[in-house]
Amino acid sequence: MTKRQNIFYAQSGGVTAVINASACGVLETAAKHKKAIGRVYAGRNGIIGALTEDLIDTSRETKQAISALRYTPAGAFGSCRYKLKGLNESRAQYERLIEVFEAHNIGYFLYNGGGDSADTCLKVSQLSKNMGFPIQAIHIPKTVDNDLPITDNCPGFGSVAKYIAISTREASFDVASMAKTSTKVFVLEVMGRHAGWIAAAGGMAADSDNDIPILILFPEVPFERRRFMAAVKQKVKIHGYCSVVVSEGLRDRQGGFLSDQGLHDAFGHAQLGGVASVISTMVKDDLGLKYHYAVADYLQRSARHIASLTDVSQAYAVGQAAVELALRGKNSIMPSIVRTSNKPYRWRIGEAKLSRVANREKMMPASFITRDGFGITQRCRTYLEPLMKGEDYPPYRNGLPRYVRLKNTAVPKKLKTPFAL
Amino acid sequence: MTKRQNIFYAQSGGVTAVINASACGVLETAAKHKKAIGRVYAGRNGIIGALTEDLIDTSRETKQAISALRYTPAGAFGSCRYKLKGLNESRAQYERLIEVFEAHNIGYFLYNGGGDSADTCLKVSQLSKNMGFPIQAIHIPKTVDNDLPITDNCPGFGSVAKYIAISTREASFDVASMAKTSTKVFVLEVMGRHAGWIAAAGGMAADSDNDIPILILFPEVPFERRRFMAAVKQKVKIHGYCSVVVSEGLRDRQGGFLSDQGLHDAFGHAQLGGVASVISTMVKDDLGLKYHYAVADYLQRSARHIASLTDVSQAYAVGQAAVELALRGKNSIMPSIVRTSNKPYRWRIGEAKLSRVANREKMMPASFITRDGFGITQRCRTYLEPLMKGEDYPPYRNGLPRYVRLKNTAVPKKLKTPFAL
Repeated sequence: MTKRQNIFYAQSGGVTAVINASACGVLETAAKHKKAIGRVYAGRNGIIGALTEDLIDTSRETKQAISALRYTPAGAFGSCRYKLKGLNESRAQYERLIEVFEAHNIGYFLYNGGGDSADTCLKVSQLSKNMGFPIQAIHIPKTVDNDLPITDNCPGFGSVAKYIAISTREASFDVASMAKTSTKVFVLEVMGRHAGWIAAAGGMAADSDNDIPILILFPEVPFERRRFMAAVKQKVKIHGYCSVVVSEGLRDRQGGFLSDQGLHDAFGHAQLGGVASVISTMVKDDLGLKYHYAVADYLQRSARHIASLTDVSQAYAVGQAAVELALRGKNSIMPSIVRTSNKPYRWRIGEAKLSRVANREKMMPASFITRDGFGITQRCRTYLEPLMKGEDYPPYRNGLPRYVRLKNTAVPKKLKTPFAL
Repeated sequence: MTKRQNIFYAQSGGVTAVINASACGVLETAAKHKKAIGRVYAGRNGIIGALTEDLIDTSRETKQAISALRYTPAGAFGSCRYKLKGLNESRAQYERLIEVFEAHNIGYFLYNGGGDSADTCLKVSQLSKNMGFPIQAIHIPKTVDNDLPITDNCPGFGSVAKYIAISTREASFDVASMAKTSTKVFVLEVMGRHAGWIAAAGGMAADSDNDIPILILFPEVPFERRRFMAAVKQKVKIHGYCSVVVSEGLRDRQGGFLSDQGLHDAFGHAQLGGVASVISTMVKDDLGLKYHYAVADYLQRSARHIASLTDVSQAYAVGQAAVELALRGKNSIMPSIVRTSNKPYRWRIGEAKLSRVANREKMMPASFITRDGFGITQRCRTYLEPLMKGEDYPPYRNGLPRYVRLKNTAVPKKLKTPFAL
């Protein structure tokens, strides 16, 4: 490098409780390398910010505000669901990116997201080779789905896992209290359209000190109504109640989503039922048991109030590593989390080639699911436990967490032409 | 009192994150008065435990276990939904209660619950007068619905309020991040079939530091679809997104529940939609906006991990006060919470006659709801804020809260006849 270059950083895809901790890692680390790095420009709403030259000048934020990102959930700069097309299909997009990067002296592209975002990052990383524009693209892993390959786990997942395990334990205590005369089955719907990592975390609610009857419905295991009902019936017989953790991506033997039950309201309009309500109604119909159900939805992935300390630390570390890798001249790479020991849990940052990360999903290993398909094995517990470990409470004022809102001051535009997405 | 008498304590109705803190208050206070009080027998599953002579000997628990009740959610002895009939309708029930109380030397009846339970407690308190059996009945207030009269607020409510306010803030940060290309409206369904106290708490997510667009749908305000949609549209126009907190008890102008939309599945079976999914579908139909919804259900009332310190302290205090009132010879009474100052928040324990508590619901005052019907006023904020204040984290092990499970050893039965409920 002959001169100081700026970093472009952006957040992509579904946000998490700790993606801002990665942003904090990027910003605080960049600030330590003022000789090599100029400013960090954040894309407003991910890659869209780059395409539309809508950049945020992070140097306008106070040190305190940057540091508060560590405990603030969701995406402070705005995220997006937007996938770049291939170079051949949409050359104009890539030319525009180069134009924007050149205009703002951007030499580093740090993209913080999941599988789709890794694909975007991979494409940008090829700009040097394919279009002769020197840029280093580093992907910063993030996804509650925990489905990126190579890395032992994904920042964002540990906190959702903790939230779902705690919520399942707490709600199970509740149902146990009510079961004598009221609710006997509690159903909790969790995220995970393809992989059952989050659903698996519900299984952690039970342990040697907490004999809680939990049935997990994984997207990896085709739903068989009769077998499931027999299992519920047995749990209720033994314990008096039963908790069910169901993945939103649960499918039947034909591969159809359980949530898609062709519901219609009184006027014939199609209605989205949600898999929890579908499963609950089946329990009522087949077993005549009173149920309650909850849908965790965004609550689970934004629950920074009970984030996992491991998760926060790792989210920060991958942000930090991304800057360090950039300074070491790396391109087309993702800092990964490498587990070096289970007990005591130890991890370090590794490196994964983006070409091996993009567009690949890591499913739950079969060895993590019990033979009956409704539970998690000891191997799964050994894997999950350290990821959920430790509390990292945000500061509170008047009973509520003090999360930061950035100023998000725009960088003055330098290009004359707008860009239509 | 001529001799030491035993206490009967039981938990009734929907449980909360802090009802066990009241139990803790009862048990630890009783332990300090060994000269006057013998043992504390807990009813297994509320009044059912008394009727069926299914008593739990709390003296078999360790001091540590009793002390852990302070931070353990739900009902440690089991709760019930069971209302005693009037004395004239069901004299046998009352005769049975007397039989059980006599057999176990029970002189104090402490019942921990909401409005229905206050009614049960009132009926028991009349046993002395009506049936010549000396017993002192004290009601210990508990309900997430916050709808008991006289008391300034109800133990259990502050923690739900805190949970809903935090969840609404966190999920709103999430939606704000996603709104550019994805979800624009987030709907959170909360408890409160008759009174909108819990829904009101969602409004606390926004404050002078957090300009979050929130619309609240109260059960007190009849739902008008067109007016609501206009409000959503405006919020989205200004902020790019909107959060909606809807009470499960939302009704239309004709008094019908919004959740009862006559949903049917592909086979013609009736389905319970849940008001969040109904409102969300309307938003999609009328405004074409992408939505997400969550249903907090039991998660909200069991979320001990983020209980309010004020709430825990008050729950303990009413348990303690119940024992002290009993020792002072009181009957047919409920320890209440009296607010003596807003800033700084100060409260003390008062006394309310049970006849003035039972079967009365306290609705949200009109002055707490904004004129458009979608928000909370400053008066409401002043009321809610101290109730949600302070954190009281439980201890953790391996990433999960260490809640206690009691041994719940049965007291040997002394009666020969069983009792059919």
